Amino acid sequence: MLGARRLLGALRLCSSVSCPRPRASAKIRVRDALRVQDASGECVTVQGWIRSVRSQKEVLFLHVNDGSSLESLQVVADSSFDSRELTFGSSVQVQGQLVKSQSKRQNVELKAEKIEVIGDCEAKAFPIKYKERHPLEYLRQYPHLRCRTNALGSILRVRSEATAAIHSYFKDNGFVHIHTPVLTSNDCEGAGELFQVEPSSKIKVPEENFFDVPAFLTVSGQLHLEVMSGAFTQVFTFGPTFRAENSQSRRHLAEFYMVEAEMSFVESLQDLMQVMEELFKATTEMVLSHCPEDVELCHQFIASGQKGRLEHMLKNNFLIISYTEAIEILKQASQNFAFTPKWGVDLQTEHEKYLVRHCGNIPVFVINYPSELKPFYMRENEDGPQNTVAAVDLLVPGVGELFGGSLREERYHVLEQRLARSGLTKAYQWYLDLRKFGSVPHGGFGMGFERYLQCILGVDNIKDVIPFPRFTHSCLL
Amino acid sequence: MLGARRLLGALRLCSSVSCPRPRASAKIRVRDALRVQDASGECVTVQGWIRSVRSQKEVLFLHVNDGSSLESLQVVADSSFDSRELTFGSSVQVQGQLVKSQSKRQNVELKAEKIEVIGDCEAKAFPIKYKERHPLEYLRQYPHLRCRTNALGSILRVRSEATAAIHSYFKDNGFVHIHTPVLTSNDCEGAGELFQVEPSSKIKVPEENFFDVPAFLTVSGQLHLEVMSGAFTQVFTFGPTFRAENSQSRRHLAEFYMVEAEMSFVESLQDLMQVMEELFKATTEMVLSHCPEDVELCHQFIASGQKGRLEHMLKNNFLIISYTEAIEILKQASQNFAFTPKWGVDLQTEHEKYLVRHCGNIPVFVINYPSELKPFYMRENEDGPQNTVAAVDLLVPGVGELFGGSLREERYHVLEQRLARSGLTKAYQWYLDLRKFGSVPHGGFGMGFERYLQCILGVDNIKDVIPFPRFTHSCLL
Repeated sequence: MLGARRLLGALRLCSSVSCPRPRASAKIRVRDALRVQDASGECVTVQGWIRSVRSQKEVLFLHVNDGSSLESLQVVADSSFDSRELTFGSSVQVQGQLVKSQSKRQNVELKAEKIEVIGDCEAKAFPIKYKERHPLEYLRQYPHLRCRTNALGSILRVRSEATAAIHSYFKDNGFVHIHTPVLTSNDCEGAGELFQVEPSSKIKVPEENFFDVPAFLTVSGQLHLEVMSGAFTQVFTFGPTFRAENSQSRRHLAEFYMVEAEMSFVESLQDLMQVMEELFKATTEMVLSHCPEDVELCHQFIASGQKGRLEHMLKNNFLIISYTEAIEILKQASQNFAFTPKWGVDLQTEHEKYLVRHCGNIPVFVINYPSELKPFYMRENEDGPQNTVAAVDLLVPGVGELFGGSLREERYHVLEQRLARSGLTKAYQWYLDLRKFGSVPHGGFGMGFERYLQCILGVDNIKDVIPFPRFTHSCLL
Repeated sequence: MLGARRLLGALRLCSSVSCPRPRASAKIRVRDALRVQDASGECVTVQGWIRSVRSQKEVLFLHVNDGSSLESLQVVADSSFDSRELTFGSSVQVQGQLVKSQSKRQNVELKAEKIEVIGDCEAKAFPIKYKERHPLEYLRQYPHLRCRTNALGSILRVRSEATAAIHSYFKDNGFVHIHTPVLTSNDCEGAGELFQVEPSSKIKVPEENFFDVPAFLTVSGQLHLEVMSGAFTQVFTFGPTFRAENSQSRRHLAEFYMVEAEMSFVESLQDLMQVMEELFKATTEMVLSHCPEDVELCHQFIASGQKGRLEHMLKNNFLIISYTEAIEILKQASQNFAFTPKWGVDLQTEHEKYLVRHCGNIPVFVINYPSELKPFYMRENEDGPQNTVAAVDLLVPGVGELFGGSLREERYHVLEQRLARSGLTKAYQWYLDLRKFGSVPHGGFGMGFERYLQCILGVDNIKDVIPFPRFTHSCLL
């Protein structure tokens, strides 16, 4: 359980002396062992799971993985260590000396002095088979075991790195992190696809709401972030959001993660788009530099060609077109769409895909949507009969809509009228208050975190980039 | 919207030249402005909300705050700038020159060249009054505005810093971050106080579960983390958890945040306790070094004397006593308890408080609880008739239980028997699987994040350390 720094300290103490058997040797993670330069017999203990066994006449080779990296540590042992229990999937503790490897495949290997099987693994019953590359659909049946494969291991390490990178990006840029609530009495999008929450039937008091009002699972932290941007200027949240959508699509989940930001004193979509593009690129660069092997695995075995597509996205400036231009482009397309593109109607997935291709597979911002298509809080552009709002969606290759954002209506009387038109004045009195006391122009956006992972890794199905996917008819574990 | 690094760049460009009026000046956050060393007339624009107005015969003083720090920036302007709209709470944009302040209270002040009121604030209607220190209970009525006060501003900035510090601690120590699900078909603690989730009544299909099975809001990510520790060795999660508890206590919420960690190859409570103590101390040190003024505000105005109490906790090694010793201590206490302490019965809040005082107000780990008091997954100590499990709680001054953890039962047959005894074998087949395929000794813990904040800041009521508190009869916004 040693941190990397302390480990190096421990190794330093131990590196130049020979290793008398009974002395306790330093525990080391596989990732750190693989990074040791000029290994010269440091005595260490490695703990993990066997990923491969190769038994030769006089030598036994094991690969031990502890999830700290995609790569395993090669253990070389005298064949006398061989045992029936040393099988794929079993857990072991190996004590020995870190030495330079003679093979070109790795720098370092562990010369075993003691091998202990901690927990065995019966090959027949284990759904993950030795040396087989299981399809992702197959693995979805085993949410409690699939993380032990290379593919899911890499995807979830990337997820962890991307999470850290997103927190860093916002912290470095002066954003305050806010835990927006999961339970809410608001319905941000005005959408109907809400989950409602009550104490479980065993303890529920009939005809009574636990919170006195109906409570729902959040569909967005935006309105709560707007509260906070009125105090901290720049805020973000990164948490679960929910849709009771009856969808089996490869881009939708009932529970998914959103990164949302809100910024006061923002007067143009340009400023918002700059932050979105920067967030995408900075996060991706950090992921690529922190776990290149994991990304590489996805690009090689899951989505061939994705490496080039991602580089193309990163090196180009994202494009900007208006909704009106987008409709024109679609109308002039030679392609036949199932849904005829028409000004005033929402873009369909097929339209989004066409637009991204049309833009040379560079992410493209679509801005200024018809007011009727968007919720009450988006800022009116006051462009006469067109009547658009300052909304922006970012469309990316392979995924479609990745970000959605807008300037928010900060003018008290304009907002008041829009709420009145929707019959929401009473419910959103507090939201009007934000415009009553020191109102400022502001805006924000949300990014679907799973879609982001799909986009950079090229993973086709959203169920494979989240540890425990929840969707209609499925809530395993 | 500039990050600190780019800001300094922008300032460097601008610092030595005089400032011709029409040129756009660099936007700067208040926190960064206050940190400028040897200000010498750099032209900047500051945006924020007025915290105080002082009008003298020839000079006007404003304090402008943008939430980037507790401290506001003093703006000095010619009295000709004075206007009725320059009131407490209104939002302004001030352009001018950063100069050394003549006052001892601050290093830097802004000599205004242009002041623009962006949104006014009617003092009469604004629930936060100028120069008044509002009680926290009063502010709870205004969850959408209370973040604009010094007290809540500081608490929420500390919360943001502590969140970042916790992520750093785990990342630096090789833990993989996991988003454990909010929706689950498990009931981890076997407790009854669950929230159940269904599509809202408008769209719900009667007699049908959206997920085919009843779904609940998570009470802990532990079981899901155990899945992941079987692949990544060290994992953590930091997310919302829920209890449908009918409680109005100052230590309970229906929605609260937990930091949970799970570690494979851990064989003793000692190893777990070391990580808990380190996490507490490392996080707190980071918070103290990153936002000392915010912590100071709490220690001065909310919880007098807390500074010394916190230092006392940080400089001492946490203590360890067994549950059995704890009961002995309580039995010998001169104090009369409402609940008589007795071996085999849970510790009450009054007992926890006494134990912490008895231990000199140093946090104390209580270990090895009677098996019957704890859930099925805790590892049996096999200590004969005592029949305890390897569980640990950390009690801290002022708050009581802050962490709870245990070694987990990793032995297939022992676990199988315990599940059978509880009638849970079928539901937890997947959990047994984890012991079937490469099982390892492991353990973990959870820390209540709001209680952690209460503990370091000395905030008495848990409702004041979370942006939007949810509890029985209350789900505002």
